[in-house]
Parts: sequence; structure tokens; C-alpha cells
Amino acid sequence: MHDKQHIASAFDRDLENIQALILKMGGLVEAAIIDGAQSLADRDIENAERVRRGDKVIDAIEEQLNEEAARVIAIRAPVSRDLRVILSVLRLAASLERIGDYAKNMAKRTSVLAELSPIEGSDAALKRMAREVQNMLKDTLDAFVRRDADLAAEVLQRDQDVDQMYNALFREFLTHMMEDPRAITACMHLHFIAKNIERMGDLVTNMAEQVIYLITGQMPDEDRPKGDNTSYVSSPE
Amino acid sequence: MHDKQHIASAFDRDLENIQALILKMGGLVEAAIIDGAQSLADRDIENAERVRRGDKVIDAIEEQLNEEAARVIAIRAPVSRDLRVILSVLRLAASLERIGDYAKNMAKRTSVLAELSPIEGSDAALKRMAREVQNMLKDTLDAFVRRDADLAAEVLQRDQDVDQMYNALFREFLTHMMEDPRAITACMHLHFIAKNIERMGDLVTNMAEQVIYLITGQMPDEDRPKGDNTSYVSSPE
Repeated sequence: MHDKQHIASAFDRDLENIQALILKMGGLVEAAIIDGAQSLADRDIENAERVRRGDKVIDAIEEQLNEEAARVIAIRAPVSRDLRVILSVLRLAASLERIGDYAKNMAKRTSVLAELSPIEGSDAALKRMAREVQNMLKDTLDAFVRRDADLAAEVLQRDQDVDQMYNALFREFLTHMMEDPRAITACMHLHFIAKNIERMGDLVTNMAEQVIYLITGQMPDEDRPKGDNTSYVSSPE
Repeated sequence: MHDKQHIASAFDRDLENIQALILKMGGLVEAAIIDGAQSLADRDIENAERVRRGDKVIDAIEEQLNEEAARVIAIRAPVSRDLRVILSVLRLAASLERIGDYAKNMAKRTSVLAELSPIEGSDAALKRMAREVQNMLKDTLDAFVRRDADLAAEVLQRDQDVDQMYNALFREFLTHMMEDPRAITACMHLHFIAKNIERMGDLVTNMAEQVIYLITGQMPDEDRPKGDNTSYVSSPE
């Protein structure tokens, strides 16, 4: 009954269960990113409210994952490689939870934006950014499931596109505000949203690095260029 | 040699080692918060650079903690309560790492602020906020070491002060920008910094909740009021 084979396959089932939970969580976070951006673009307060409620489900799955991981570790006492998979999943889950929070915070601004004049082009730009981050997240989760380090490495590259979109928007918002002080409040909120999406991209990038580490045992090169260069922007160009 | 007593005390030593690492990490993050805010107030680019370099040390300790925790779990196969302590420490470490990142990002804006006209009163307000968050972090770590759930619960309350400071600053910056478009760029950066400090406060709050969970086995009441209400501010008051 306690032969090696039996124990190994019980652990495999536990691991599959844990992986299923993280994929479910990932799918909900992907949906939250898209729905959050869509609710903003449509000024759809009901949809925003759905995103907020959905975040509680995401948080509950993270809790469930933590409990389940602790249970599996305690019962199965996995060998170091298996243990590394479980601890990696917990870190991926923690990142997903944060991305879900950002999506929720993005959706929360729908009601205030509904009261303000729209800023031309910004809704489309924010939706593009959100769509790109959602795609990066999808590929990161695929890379995790298939243990595909190349796909994860590609995600790292794509984060630079998100950063470029953010930097361009930052400058646009500054220009708008200077030209028309009545646009200041809307631009402050829209800038916030843009920064939140950029941060989601950073978190997905961290997840992709974690996946690479899980597969190869090594963290990717740390010299990847950092995206948000607005720390150095003292005036719009 | 493998009697229960021996194993228990070896585990205790491991746990002490892990706790020492998290306290060291916490001390460095506390210093990063204060030094980050101080470098901004003084427009001291060298000090900001020190904060940025220091963040690498913080990240390295988090890595070390993750490795050490995996090693201890694999070797000692701790019982569920001890395992919970270790997994809690990893979550505390993940929060500390994020707070360190925010402190670094705050320091990074020193050079751009040095090129812009100061906004009256903002430096002092930001330093007050940073000081309060650092105190909250200190008390959270004390609560962890002493297993003092009351002290951790007190930290949850204090986060509301940080949130109030942030909300007041948000309105002030909006007013400044509307009155003087030349102040827009500086206010955008300063607002960013204020929001980052507010987020650090939220992360410390999450840590305090984690400490309470570790001690009592229960998460504190979820109905704590959420701090940043600027999602609903369509105009400065």
C-alpha cells in the first residue's frame, strides 16, 4: 500500500489538482483584466461591479491554493524538485492575486470616469495595453503547463511593448493637462489606470521569470531593460 | 541520534535562522522607506542611488529565505503548525520585497524632482507618511516576533491615517495643478510617490493580517474600511 509507485501517483494527483487551481485562477484574472478595461471604455458601472465581485473569487482560490499546498507538503513530504514546483505555484498565485487587485482597482475608476469628459484616444490605448497584458499572461500560463521556457522568455521581451505604450500615454496625458486644465482630473485617473496596467505587465514578467526558473533552475539574465522611464521625464516631449 | 528531541531542536534552530533573516530583511526595508523619502526631500541623488543599490540586497535576502525555507521543509518535514510558520514567513518576505520595490521606485524619482520647482508642503507631508508606514512595519515585525496579535491589530487601524494623508494630498495636488499648469509635471510625480507610500501602507496591513492569522489561525474581519477613496473623486473639494 505504501510502495513508491503508489505514493508517487498520489502526489501526481495532488500536483495536478494544484495546477488545475492555478489555471482556474489565471483564467479568472485574464477575464478580470479584459472586463476591467472594457468596463472603463464603456463607462459600464455594472460590469465594473462584476469585476469587483469576481476579485473575491480570485482571492478565495489563492487561499485554497495555500491551504492545499500546505496540506500536500505536510502529507507527502515531497522531494526537493516536487517541492520547488509547489512553492513556485504559490509564488505564481501571489502574483496572480496582485494582478487581480490591479484589475479590480482599474474597474473601480469606472464610476468616476463616467462623470468626466473623455480624453480622445485614451480608451482605445488602454484597451490595447490591457489586451497585450492579458495575452502575455495567457502565454505565461501556457509556458508553465507545457514547461516551455522559450515561450516564457518571449513574454519577457513583450513587456517592453507594454512599457512603451505606457510611456507614450504618460507624455500624452501631461500634454493634455497643460493644454487644458479642465482635463486634469480625468487625466490623473487615466494615468493611474495606465500605470496599473503597466504594473500588471511587470507582474506577468515576474511570473514568466518564475516559470523559467522552475524549468531551467536558473533565473533569466537580470539586465533586462526596465520599462517605465517616466521617472526621468521632467516635461512632455 | 534521530530521537524526537534532537529533531525538534534542530528545527527550532532552522526556524530561528529563518526568523533572523526576515528581521534583517525588514530592517533594511524600514531603512529604505526612510532613506527613500529623505533622498526625495533633500533632492539627494547619491542617497537615492544608495537606496536603489540596497534593494538588490533586499531581493537577495528574499531569495535566500525561499531557498532556506525549501531546504528546511525538505529536510525536516515539519508538522502542520511549524509548516504554517514557514509558509507565513515566505508570504511576509514577498510583501517586504514589494515594499522595498516601492521604496526604490520612490527614490528613483529624486533626480527628476531635482529639476522641478518644489510644491510647498509636499516634502514634509510625504516624509510624515513614510515615517508612519515605517513605524507600522516596525510594529508588525515586533508583533510577529512576540506573537502579539493585539499589536498587529493596532497596525490595521493605523493604516487609515496613512490613507487619510494620501487622500488629502491627492486633493491638494489636483488644486495646485488647476491653479498653475506649470506645477503639473511636479505634481504628477509627487502624486505618484504619495500613492506608492499609500500602497506600502496597504502591504504592511496585509503583513499585519498575516501575523494575526499566524497567531490566531483566523484572518481578521474583512470589513475594514478601504483607504484610497480617490477612485470616487471627480474634482478637488
